[in-house]
Amino acid sequence: MDRRSFLKNTALGGTAAAATTALAAPAYAQGKRTLTMVTSWGRGLAGVFDAAQKFADNVNNMSGGDLTIDVKAAGELVGAFEVFDAVTAGQADIYHAADYYFINQHPALAFFTGVPFGMTATELNNWYYHGGGMELHHEVGEIFGLKSFLAGNTGTQAGGWFAKEITGPEDFNGLKFRMPGLGGKVLGAMGASVQNLPGAEVYQALASGAIDGTEWIGPWADEKAGFQEITKFYYTAGMHEPAAGLSSAVNLDVFNELTPAQQSMIEVAAGHANIWNLSQYLNNNGAALKRLQAGGVKVLEFPDSVWDAMFEASKGVYAEFMGDELFKKVNDAYFASMDESSGWLTQSSGAYRAQRDRIRGV
Amino acid sequence: MDRRSFLKNTALGGTAAAATTALAAPAYAQGKRTLTMVTSWGRGLAGVFDAAQKFADNVNNMSGGDLTIDVKAAGELVGAFEVFDAVTAGQADIYHAADYYFINQHPALAFFTGVPFGMTATELNNWYYHGGGMELHHEVGEIFGLKSFLAGNTGTQAGGWFAKEITGPEDFNGLKFRMPGLGGKVLGAMGASVQNLPGAEVYQALASGAIDGTEWIGPWADEKAGFQEITKFYYTAGMHEPAAGLSSAVNLDVFNELTPAQQSMIEVAAGHANIWNLSQYLNNNGAALKRLQAGGVKVLEFPDSVWDAMFEASKGVYAEFMGDELFKKVNDAYFASMDESSGWLTQSSGAYRAQRDRIRGV
Repeated sequence: MDRRSFLKNTALGGTAAAATTALAAPAYAQGKRTLTMVTSWGRGLAGVFDAAQKFADNVNNMSGGDLTIDVKAAGELVGAFEVFDAVTAGQADIYHAADYYFINQHPALAFFTGVPFGMTATELNNWYYHGGGMELHHEVGEIFGLKSFLAGNTGTQAGGWFAKEITGPEDFNGLKFRMPGLGGKVLGAMGASVQNLPGAEVYQALASGAIDGTEWIGPWADEKAGFQEITKFYYTAGMHEPAAGLSSAVNLDVFNELTPAQQSMIEVAAGHANIWNLSQYLNNNGAALKRLQAGGVKVLEFPDSVWDAMFEASKGVYAEFMGDELFKKVNDAYFASMDESSGWLTQSSGAYRAQRDRIRGV
Repeated sequence: MDRRSFLKNTALGGTAAAATTALAAPAYAQGKRTLTMVTSWGRGLAGVFDAAQKFADNVNNMSGGDLTIDVKAAGELVGAFEVFDAVTAGQADIYHAADYYFINQHPALAFFTGVPFGMTATELNNWYYHGGGMELHHEVGEIFGLKSFLAGNTGTQAGGWFAKEITGPEDFNGLKFRMPGLGGKVLGAMGASVQNLPGAEVYQALASGAIDGTEWIGPWADEKAGFQEITKFYYTAGMHEPAAGLSSAVNLDVFNELTPAQQSMIEVAAGHANIWNLSQYLNNNGAALKRLQAGGVKVLEFPDSVWDAMFEASKGVYAEFMGDELFKKVNDAYFASMDESSGWLTQSSGAYRAQRDRIRGV
């Protein structure tokens, strides 16, 4: 964590946003405004870019053209991982990204994407909308001059693609692997050489041997990325992103200049994108996994010894950040909510599905 | 199923909606319009009324006051189960209800709330937003002059409240039980005397002995309803509503008169209400269940013999409606989607949660 970068960005955000306000004033006279959205996604990247575009389309439609969100792919205005700085600095108005890309700005951002041994999408949404999660997302974002909303979710991400079968935790030692966020730090603690790469760059890195393996999202998005052309061992459940929330974060000064109606459109469109995008992944993953298997991909689960080692390694990763008061505050609220909401899910939809699947024989 | 009522309402819907158009014209000149929403819910009824109010608040806020949705509780304009007829006839503009209350109008409406041995909320949303479910909801609704959207979900409903422990399927014989929808027909086939009652009337029926037991929603809403004051045997998972979607359905002529921006607000606010409301129930159920247990409620699961008998009985219930072409079309699409999406959920979030809970010892 780099607290200097944190402070620098906060100061910059204030100054640059003020400049933006002055520039934007003439547009207001006509009652119309275009906001530039920068994203971490290659244009058309399955699911993640769709979530950004759906959010923008809905705001554009609901505003009747008074508020237009212009979606830029990674690299069109700034790079995939530069979107956070671009929006805090007022160079762009909104980003759509996964907040755990920016844990060097603040580690608590990880909780709004996904954290090792943390919440599934359903659990995350419970906390976010009714357990104080959204308010904490705002609190973290506002440090950087952002108004942040969840606006997408990939569901539980796959463990990833490997060149050979994983038989124990020692197989991670020396492995060159792509994994962002706190999950990447867990693999690092297990001896892996972990890299973070934007989605659009992963295929080339894997094909060139710059990395030995990668996680990306899940069967549907991974198939579209083409990883099955290079590696054949695919692990389904992983510990690193039990959910992967995507965020739309608006420059706070820009947000405050919007009318209350426009602010409401941003918030409601973000919630809609959240459920729409999660459903998109979950609706497509089953068929994609069957196609991958039919194409020769070996679908596997990590052995218990790997899960156990990952859990042990995760303890040190969390401990590393607990000295930060806000990280600890978000961490404690997050896991208290998970412990509270997960039991009922086991007793209700979990017990129901066990009976349904037993009787139907699936 | 009553095809006459079906046809009568379709005809009425057309005529009465035309009258509404004429009446509404002056309001348009001022660019503002108020839509009356009738609901199946008592004012403030936990979760269900909240979903209707949240949907309305979001539309009101996003429109900046140009479009106001005025939410009426059950009985304020029409009765809880009269909202469908009121909106098809143009007496009100929108309803918020659970569509399975109206299976006598068309049995396919059951799929947009919940059906025996059907989809959980996550599975339902996958189908709804990306598997053609929403389009089928529109198709069924349009027969009655409605534009229908999912706008809430209770999650997997509890099996319900009983005066004594259920030890086998024979315990349902002669039982006077409140359960709407196809689930109620399943209990009927098992010998129960099934009644449908609006939520606000269930407590009194149970207290008076008019019914022996009831299902309502889940721990949080059931606790607020106060059933624990009367009965002490509470079954968690049930087969009858693996999800319970709530719908906002707009009179189709009214919907067509709205601007494209307002139509978009209706659709987006409905999606937001869907995720917001599901999270509300799931975030509150765990703590409520603990309070119920602490208060002396015995929390149980149905034995396998009961689940098996329910499944056998459900076959006859589905068969009863398969002669209706649209019912069969929706049924087949629904179960094909469930079979496609449920496998990945087992392999991803299911496998992940099993590992997480094993390691964390919860």
